[in-house]
Order: sequence, then C-alpha cells, then structure tokens
Amino acid sequence: MGQAALKRWSVCAFVVVLLFSLIAVSSVPDTADATKHKGNVVLAVHGGAGGGSIAEDQREAYQKEVRAALETGKKILDSGGSSVDAVEAAVRVLEDSPLFNAGKGAVFNDDAAHELDASIMNGENLEAGAVAGSKHAKNPITLARTIMEESPHVLLSGDSADWFGMEHGVEMVTQDYYYTQERWDELMRSKEKENDAEAFGTVGAVASDRSGNLAAATSTGGLTNKHRGRIGDSPIVGAGMYANNDSVAVSATGKGEVFIRGTAAVDISALVQYKGLPVEEAARTVIEEKLLPLGGTGGVIALDKNGNFAAPYSTERMIYGYVTEDGQYTIVLSPEDEPDDVPPPSATDIRARVEQFKKEGEFKNSEAARSLTNLLTVVERFEERREADKVVKHMENFKSLLIRQNEDALISDKAYNVLYADAVALIQKWR
Amino acid sequence: MGQAALKRWSVCAFVVVLLFSLIAVSSVPDTADATKHKGNVVLAVHGGAGGGSIAEDQREAYQKEVRAALETGKKILDSGGSSVDAVEAAVRVLEDSPLFNAGKGAVFNDDAAHELDASIMNGENLEAGAVAGSKHAKNPITLARTIMEESPHVLLSGDSADWFGMEHGVEMVTQDYYYTQERWDELMRSKEKENDAEAFGTVGAVASDRSGNLAAATSTGGLTNKHRGRIGDSPIVGAGMYANNDSVAVSATGKGEVFIRGTAAVDISALVQYKGLPVEEAARTVIEEKLLPLGGTGGVIALDKNGNFAAPYSTERMIYGYVTEDGQYTIVLSPEDEPDDVPPPSATDIRARVEQFKKEGEFKNSEAARSLTNLLTVVERFEERREADKVVKHMENFKSLLIRQNEDALISDKAYNVLYADAVALIQKWR
Repeated sequence: MGQAALKRWSVCAFVVVLLFSLIAVSSVPDTADATKHKGNVVLAVHGGAGGGSIAEDQREAYQKEVRAALETGKKILDSGGSSVDAVEAAVRVLEDSPLFNAGKGAVFNDDAAHELDASIMNGENLEAGAVAGSKHAKNPITLARTIMEESPHVLLSGDSADWFGMEHGVEMVTQDYYYTQERWDELMRSKEKENDAEAFGTVGAVASDRSGNLAAATSTGGLTNKHRGRIGDSPIVGAGMYANNDSVAVSATGKGEVFIRGTAAVDISALVQYKGLPVEEAARTVIEEKLLPLGGTGGVIALDKNGNFAAPYSTERMIYGYVTEDGQYTIVLSPEDEPDDVPPPSATDIRARVEQFKKEGEFKNSEAARSLTNLLTVVERFEERREADKVVKHMENFKSLLIRQNEDALISDKAYNVLYADAVALIQKWR
Repeated sequence: MGQAALKRWSVCAFVVVLLFSLIAVSSVPDTADATKHKGNVVLAVHGGAGGGSIAEDQREAYQKEVRAALETGKKILDSGGSSVDAVEAAVRVLEDSPLFNAGKGAVFNDDAAHELDASIMNGENLEAGAVAGSKHAKNPITLARTIMEESPHVLLSGDSADWFGMEHGVEMVTQDYYYTQERWDELMRSKEKENDAEAFGTVGAVASDRSGNLAAATSTGGLTNKHRGRIGDSPIVGAGMYANNDSVAVSATGKGEVFIRGTAAVDISALVQYKGLPVEEAARTVIEEKLLPLGGTGGVIALDKNGNFAAPYSTERMIYGYVTEDGQYTIVLSPEDEPDDVPPPSATDIRARVEQFKKEGEFKNSEAARSLTNLLTVVERFEERREADKVVKHMENFKSLLIRQNEDALISDKAYNVLYADAVALIQKWR
C-alpha cells in the first residue's frame, strides 16, 4: 500500500514537474504544509491559476485560507458527510475570503458591478445546479446548490436567479459587500489598458466521500472588466466543473471562453471513461494538448474515486491544496511549493513492481503478469543500449496491453493505475 | 415504443446503407419529400422533439418551412459557402416561422415574457458564440454568431447581450414580435396546471461544407412557463450544440436540464472520437442509454464529415429533415414518415461486402480482409443453426476487430463505417 501510494503521489509530482520542466526544482519545498501524502486524496481545492506572484507577506494568508477550506471540508467527510456537502463548505470558505475572485473579493465587470457564477455537481446521480450572473448571493455556491435541490432547472441567471434564491432563504447582500480596493484598482488599470491582466482567483473543490461518491464545485467573479452579462465556464456543466462517479470530479480555472469551447472538464472525464487514461494523463492532455493550442491557459484539479489526484496547469502557477484520507495536507502556492519529484522508474523497477503485484493478487492469472514482464525484459535490453525509440515504442505497447488487460478485468484498477503511470513516466524520460 | 425504436433504427440503416449505394431499396417512402438520397448528407435541420401530433392540415405548412430551411442552407453550400453560413441561414428560416419555438413563435416564461437562447459553433477551429435570455434579438442565432465573431466572450446573457447586439447592428424587436396566440394559450394552460406539456419546437441545424468543415446551430424559446432567467441546454456548448471536425456536428432538442447534466452533444462527439463508434451508434447510445435513464427525453441530429447522419429520438416524434450533396430532400414530421426500413444483412451479405471492399482497395492488406471473412464464416454457421447467442458474441468480436483495424489504418473509414453498421444491424436482429 505504501508503495502504491508513493507511486500515485509520484505521478502527480512528476506530471506537474514536467509541466514546468523549464523550472529547476532544486530546493526542498519551503511550505510547511507541503508534506508528501501517504494515503488517498479525498478533498482538493484551488484558488485560481494565473501569472504574477504572491507577495511574500501574503503567502501566509493564502496558506491559511486554503488550509481552512480543506479542513472545513475534511471535517465533513470525516463525520460521514457527503462529498457535495464537503465541496460546498470548502468553496464557501474561499468565497468568504477577500483574497480570491469569488464571493467577497470578486472582480468588477465593465459596468463596475459584480456578477458571480457558480456551479455544483453530484457525481452519483449527475444532479447539478448553477447560477450565472448573480448580483446578490453572498455565497453563489450555496445558491447553485439550492437551484440543484429546489428548482426543476439546472441553470438560472441574473436577477431571476437571485429572486429564486431569496424565495428559498439563500443569504443575499448588496453589491458593496463584494468590494475590495484591489479589485477596483484592477478594473481601473484594465480600463486604462495599462494592464490587460486576466482575473486570477476563481475557486473550486473536488471531493470523494466514504460512499465513494464524487462531487465538484466552482465559483468565480469572472474576468476583470468583462462585458456585463458575460457567462464564463464556471457555471457550465462540463466546462468549468464536472463530476461523475464513473470517471472523475473536476474543477477548472483559467481562460473561461476556451474552457467552454474545449468542454474542458467533461473532456477529462471522457478520456478517463472512454480511453481508459489515468486521471493524471487525462487532465494533463486536456490542459496541454487541447486547451493550450486553442489559446487557453489555466489549470484544473481532478480527482477519481480511487483517490488519484492531478493538478496540471499551463499558467505560471496555480494555488491549490489537497488532503488525504489520513489527514495529510499539501498546499501549493507556486511551483517551488510542488512536492519533490521522484525519479522515473526503469524497466527493471517496473518489472519488480509487476512481480510484487502478482504476489499481492492484483492479477487475475499469472499469464497476464507474464505478458507484461516479457515486454519489460525486452525494454530492459533497449534501455541498456540506450535505444530510445525502441524503449518508447515497446512501452507504448505496454500501455496498450495494460488498457486491454484492465478492460478484460485481468488486472486490478490499483495495479493498472500504478503501472500505467510508470509507463508514462518511462516514456517521457526517453522521449 | 417498438415502432419508434424500429423507426429510429431504420433511419440509421437507411442513411448508412444508401449513403454508400450498396443495397437496392425496393419500396418507396410514402412521404412526398422522403425521396431516397444517393449521396452524402450535407445539411440537416430539426424543429423539435416531443409528443402530440401535428394536425393533418398543418403538415404541409411544417413541411414547407423545413424544406425552405434546407433549401436556404443548401444554396449556400452549393455556392461554396461555409457550413457556419449554412446553419445560421437555415436556423433563421425556422426562427422566422411562427410554427417553431424559436424567434417568432417562442414560448412564454413564467413572467409572461420571452427569453431566447441560441448558439453556433465552427467545427474547424472550435470557435463558438451563444446568447442566453435575449429579449430583443429578432434572430437569436445571428446574435450568437455576432458574439462568436465580434466579442472576446463565448456566452453573453440577458439585456447585456441585446445591448451588445445593438452595438453591432443585430436586428432587434420588441417583445410583442414573438407573440403567437398558441403560445399564450400554452402558458395559460400551464399556469392552470391543466397541461404540463413541455415546449416543442426548438430548432437547429448541422452542416458539412465543401472544405469538409462541420458546423452546428441551435435556437429556442425554452420551456413554456420556465422560471425567468432559466438557461437551458441550447446555448451551452457541449450540451445542446457542438461541432468538431474531428468527430461530429450535433444539434439537440429535448429536456434541456438533462441534456446539460448529460453533456449530451459532446458525449456523442467523445464516443465517436475516443471509442470509434459510428455517429449512428454514438447518437443512439446517448439518447437511449445515457439521457433516458436520467429522465431526459428528446432527440438530436448528428452529422459526421463523411456525410453519415443520425437522428435518434426518445420522444413520440421529432421534426427533422436532411438533404444530400446531390440535392435529395427527406423530411420527417412523425415516425410514419421515416424512410423505409432496409432488412438487416446476413453474415453472407457482409462477407460479400468485405470481398468487394478488398477488390476496391479499401484494406491495407489482404490479411486484414481475411481475418474479417474468417470470423464471418464462423457466424454464417451459427446463423444457419440459429444460435443467436453465438452470432451476437462473434459479431461483437467482429466489431472490436473492425475498430482495431480502423485505428491501425488497415481499413478505410468508408469501409469501416459500412461494415460496422452492418454488424450493428445483424446483432440487433439476433438479440
């Protein structure tokens, strides 16, 4: 178990680190919370992806809020609460903080007003609720949840959404509640074209509860100086948010228009569900290979029901954190905080892991394990001769074989995920 | 339901089989417009899916409008126009008709007002534009296109969207323009709970142009008596509308909330792109196996770049029509209008088709063809013995083999599509 967990962890680290392969991560993370986790991830939150940097004297404040969001959600999960409860509660903490672009602290639109978007989804039954352009909900995520539970509709917008919320007891505020000097200055800079910076600070959460049900939630003020009435990806099921027990829970942050066009969140789900990709590879593929070519930078947090977690981003940094079942917290404010990298395995390492899984009964029969080790023996030879092309080619075959074996239930999901991640890491090393 | 299902199947069979002019059809459809097409489908439109029936004296009016929409779009495609131009123009015709729930003739919301949703997407570059809750655009689809082309945003809503349209010369009307007595009466009935009927008459179009670019468009007034501010699936990329040259163009109509939760349109795309399903099977799977279990009835029109067209629906009927490259029009107002069914092929028929494709050079090598005929020879034996289980099992293997061969470029897309459809038909016959 420790071994598997380590590997799951190493995938996250590896994927993220490769993303930023230009940045040398030589120093030990200086974040107090960036401990390596040893168990499954049950809850993750993000506070937006973008450029710029966090002032040194603000780091502590951000860490505190992210930690508070995680702790709030974790407490709910620990007491047997649902993943829907956990993501709503975690997002509320971030909405209430002026540091993030959601709820208090939301950006201004081009008419110097606040219009907030949020959505929530239950992966068990695909129920969803969302609000676009709320002007008065103190916690848009709670309005979204109320729409999910009390309305025959999924998505309500504008004043009518707030009216619905008022009828159902959702706490309302006047526009001045959302005001912060920093956001006002951002609007002024944007209007003067001094600074065309995009908003930073959309928030979101993904969680998996004791029953194995996934949920996701996203909340945002949108883009600074956005056209009034503009709806981004955050309230759109499948774009900025998606949860499905058959695949993953996803919350996204980034250039909303591209995340809509690329149906970002559900594309990750489809790659997991239909192509059999592990969540790490699916999320990375969408962020790097699908959205970037469309001009869309950003990131996602994605969690599958086995606790595999990925947090790829194509921006300079993404604020996020996660907590494992046994309560280990990791918080990342910038790439330097990413947990240490683990060197990619060799074919020999992978073969040893196959043998170990075989002993642990993760294969249906020994033939399945043998066909994998046979391939790895071939790869070992090419690794020795440093014939990169052939290593890559045979490891691609290894991946295909793994997918088939998993489809045919010849290999457990656990072993499949670990070995697949190993194969991806080995291929990336030689490519 | 048996009849409807049969009919739904018949469309797929009809389209696929006639597309490739491989089977002689003996009987002539009894609808005036339901002529047999001999070439690829290049444009299709729909006018909504639902229950009830069209009064006999209204049939001609519906046929005329659907035909006019198709002819308008077809003329654009014939003169070298883009698929985006074609779907916009076709949808405008249906918006201008009081018969459909879009533009003139849109339903009333619970505040006795009209709020219109529309979206358009270019499959070549995944550009998209959409409007939610327009109260004044005469043609919401044109406002959606203007947003796609003139705004940095994808989705604008409410008065702000109309404001944007006015700034960009989109024709605006006052609310009374949309009024029809029939829709008013529907609202009154809905308010009195006499009739809880859902709206019928969302419109949409899908097209493929000479450059092989796909496009899709959807426009609607939403649901009668909907909560003001409610946004349905029609303006949501991936829910009520999607287009991607790598897979399909889709326009949906039905219970919008479920189509949002099920990310209906992009799920069809994902099944085509990631699972290798032909468009007919992908569309049917989503309508019948994904959305129905969530409580969502409705239908889609879906078109791939090879002209394969599908129009499955889970309601009593769907109004739709399509036109082939060589100008053959088919219009369906109710299941009786569906083009005649074609008897499913036998394993012997399919084997003959494989041999034919081999001669025509549709296989990369003769071994690929042989592995298929070998399987079919086995199936022929089980067909003789009427061992249904074994026919089904081996034909499932046949399908898997086809998918692998297509992935490995051992078989052309054309031959793959025909043989896959044959396999599905044979399996359905014996199941």
